[in-house]
Amino acid sequence: MLFRQIRIPEGRGTTVADVLIQNGSIAAVSSERLDVPAGTRIYDGQDKLLLPGLVNAHCHIPMTLLRSRGHGLNLQRWLTEAIFPFEAKMTANDMRIGTKLGLLEMIAGGVTSFSDMYMYIVDIADECLNAGIRANLCYGIGSGDEPFENRRGVQETLALLDWVQKDNRADYITVDAGLHAEYTSDEETVRAVAAFAAEHNLSVHTHLSETRFEHEQSLERHGMTPLAWFEHCGLLHNKTQVAHAVHISADDIALMQTRNVVPVHCPGSNLKLGSGIADIPAWQAAGLPFAVGTDGAASNNNLNQLEELHLASMIQKGYRFDPLQLDVEALMSAAFENGYRVQGRAGGQILPDLPADLFVLDLDRPHLIPADDPLALLFHSAQASDVCLTMAAGKILYENGEFKTLDAERIKAESAQAVKSLLARI
Amino acid sequence: MLFRQIRIPEGRGTTVADVLIQNGSIAAVSSERLDVPAGTRIYDGQDKLLLPGLVNAHCHIPMTLLRSRGHGLNLQRWLTEAIFPFEAKMTANDMRIGTKLGLLEMIAGGVTSFSDMYMYIVDIADECLNAGIRANLCYGIGSGDEPFENRRGVQETLALLDWVQKDNRADYITVDAGLHAEYTSDEETVRAVAAFAAEHNLSVHTHLSETRFEHEQSLERHGMTPLAWFEHCGLLHNKTQVAHAVHISADDIALMQTRNVVPVHCPGSNLKLGSGIADIPAWQAAGLPFAVGTDGAASNNNLNQLEELHLASMIQKGYRFDPLQLDVEALMSAAFENGYRVQGRAGGQILPDLPADLFVLDLDRPHLIPADDPLALLFHSAQASDVCLTMAAGKILYENGEFKTLDAERIKAESAQAVKSLLARI
Repeated sequence: MLFRQIRIPEGRGTTVADVLIQNGSIAAVSSERLDVPAGTRIYDGQDKLLLPGLVNAHCHIPMTLLRSRGHGLNLQRWLTEAIFPFEAKMTANDMRIGTKLGLLEMIAGGVTSFSDMYMYIVDIADECLNAGIRANLCYGIGSGDEPFENRRGVQETLALLDWVQKDNRADYITVDAGLHAEYTSDEETVRAVAAFAAEHNLSVHTHLSETRFEHEQSLERHGMTPLAWFEHCGLLHNKTQVAHAVHISADDIALMQTRNVVPVHCPGSNLKLGSGIADIPAWQAAGLPFAVGTDGAASNNNLNQLEELHLASMIQKGYRFDPLQLDVEALMSAAFENGYRVQGRAGGQILPDLPADLFVLDLDRPHLIPADDPLALLFHSAQASDVCLTMAAGKILYENGEFKTLDAERIKAESAQAVKSLLARI
Repeated sequence: MLFRQIRIPEGRGTTVADVLIQNGSIAAVSSERLDVPAGTRIYDGQDKLLLPGLVNAHCHIPMTLLRSRGHGLNLQRWLTEAIFPFEAKMTANDMRIGTKLGLLEMIAGGVTSFSDMYMYIVDIADECLNAGIRANLCYGIGSGDEPFENRRGVQETLALLDWVQKDNRADYITVDAGLHAEYTSDEETVRAVAAFAAEHNLSVHTHLSETRFEHEQSLERHGMTPLAWFEHCGLLHNKTQVAHAVHISADDIALMQTRNVVPVHCPGSNLKLGSGIADIPAWQAAGLPFAVGTDGAASNNNLNQLEELHLASMIQKGYRFDPLQLDVEALMSAAFENGYRVQGRAGGQILPDLPADLFVLDLDRPHLIPADDPLALLFHSAQASDVCLTMAAGKILYENGEFKTLDAERIKAESAQAVKSLLARI
């Protein structure tokens, strides 16, 4: 496939190029018109912006089935009355349905890879592979009565490690070591996850200082912030990504720098649950790269990564009284380069030899005119529905409203039915 | 036209009803299936949510042509280098083109009425009438060397008052008295606008305390907040709506209550320009009803009213550390009831005898499933592109991607051309 004379990012702006896709990769990028073999599909780049696929760097994908559940309850009632009883009844099949529903939303919104923490991770992996999307998957391990190696999270992670060995599955699915959070873990568990990650050479994915309460409770419990305590337990000797990080200290930021810990900013979830606004300028002042994620649909209410980037930009500008916060360059890094980096994947730019994980934004929409600053539009005017093509590993997953690997009508119907049935069982 | 068995709002939730439209109005709303004359179009309400048309309560519609202009500059450079030189060159025809471009975006996003402040208001009115959308239009009058009655804003307002007298135009276009802002007005001007509004029985539309700087400068200049100074000048004896109100005092809030001044919250613009976050809980504690608007596309970067309501909800929850801020009931009032109220129009509910100003949200989208809390979805999951029908005065303006009163392809092309030509003239 050849994207003919299509806009691509170049620094703060864009340029027009021919982009050739072959064997799942970007084969060539040229400002000249490329010659291609007969039979190559030519995609007209007129009024289109080609971008690296979006990485949703923190998600709980099957929670699409819990979207809006308990909306209007406070956090404690939301969790105990609406979320936990529902989750307790979810079967492997529900997980698959919720995953597919989330994939529809993410793929239509330009996401080609996401980092997830949930249960039934082999089932989730299988659905991702079927859909042709990439994912970093983990089970958020926590304390338990059983020996560490018998805990369900460890068993599921080992099963997923086995599963990915076959048929180049590792090209699509990366296994991470999941630690749920400081407040659900004792020291033995954190040390065991650290050792487990080191043994299998896995990155660690965890929640960190999402709420002020969590942060302060850790100080009380351990005399340390959650991050300092993770360091104390040896966790950060592994490559680590931490979701939220809303209430971290200056020392935490310095420690993240030292240990190459990447924070994943989840502005939508942090706003909707009343967790607060992360201190992004402090991260930037320390030179700390960060990625962006939606969190689960139960707390965010959608998996709209473009909206998430929009929120990230807007909040800092307004909250800091400074329209220059998070300029387009910073947004580009957070959206692309850092997402790929945190996942340990090649990508994030339109360059030869990188995997063809891409999406196309249709600029020919009333709300994207005039289009002389397409990157400003991408982060501030575009809707997820302006994505008109999503491709992973050179394969088109979505184009102009049509899903190529997923049966949208069936998934929507199954999802509604699964929720009905789950509610009847609670 | 009959909306057959369609979801409509009812308190905090929704109910299913038949809604009959006749002669531009809602003729009947019934939980039973209504019989209708042969030839009536039946609209299948399955998976659809019918809502009152959205009111964008503060806009500068021709500024769509300035979308993204100067993005990344600070406020002072943005205004002086990017905005003012561009605006100075805009012709009546540019205003018409920019208006039509904005109408495409708003109509496709469920907006059936908006309140606007700009120049060439008869041209804007004419385009609104052609498109079949309703609008409250004003010219933001400010100080000038000429006698008040000779100023362009007054002349344009008088011309618009004349213009609306014909052919039931007043059903569509309401003339407001526009006062630009405290910082662009001397006392003589404010008093003259107050008298002008009283003489012609017009509501006043003005900017208020948008930035901290503006608010503090007024205290220095007048020893009064902008609102207190407006009161001092007699302005608030008229029905008044004030856009932004980010930096108002407790006394200002009390004064708004006394004088029935309605603030229009513009969260997107306030965030993007770094103006700050309005104290909505204080407004609510005082029982002050407020409407919501996008402001112009130059500062917000779009005219997406659903996104604006989403921002309004999310910011307060996150900034106040309280997920219960701006619950669905409050969002419903802000979105509908107060928008109609501030415009002095009947509407905001699905009830017999109200004008048929409506839009339909398609719930059959992956990101809107499960749909058992449709109003939470409306404010937290929906995209403007989920709007599948927009109707004003019983006439369909937009349905499933098709504009019925506007030539979208031509307007998009004309807009791009107009911007190119304007830039060449600067």
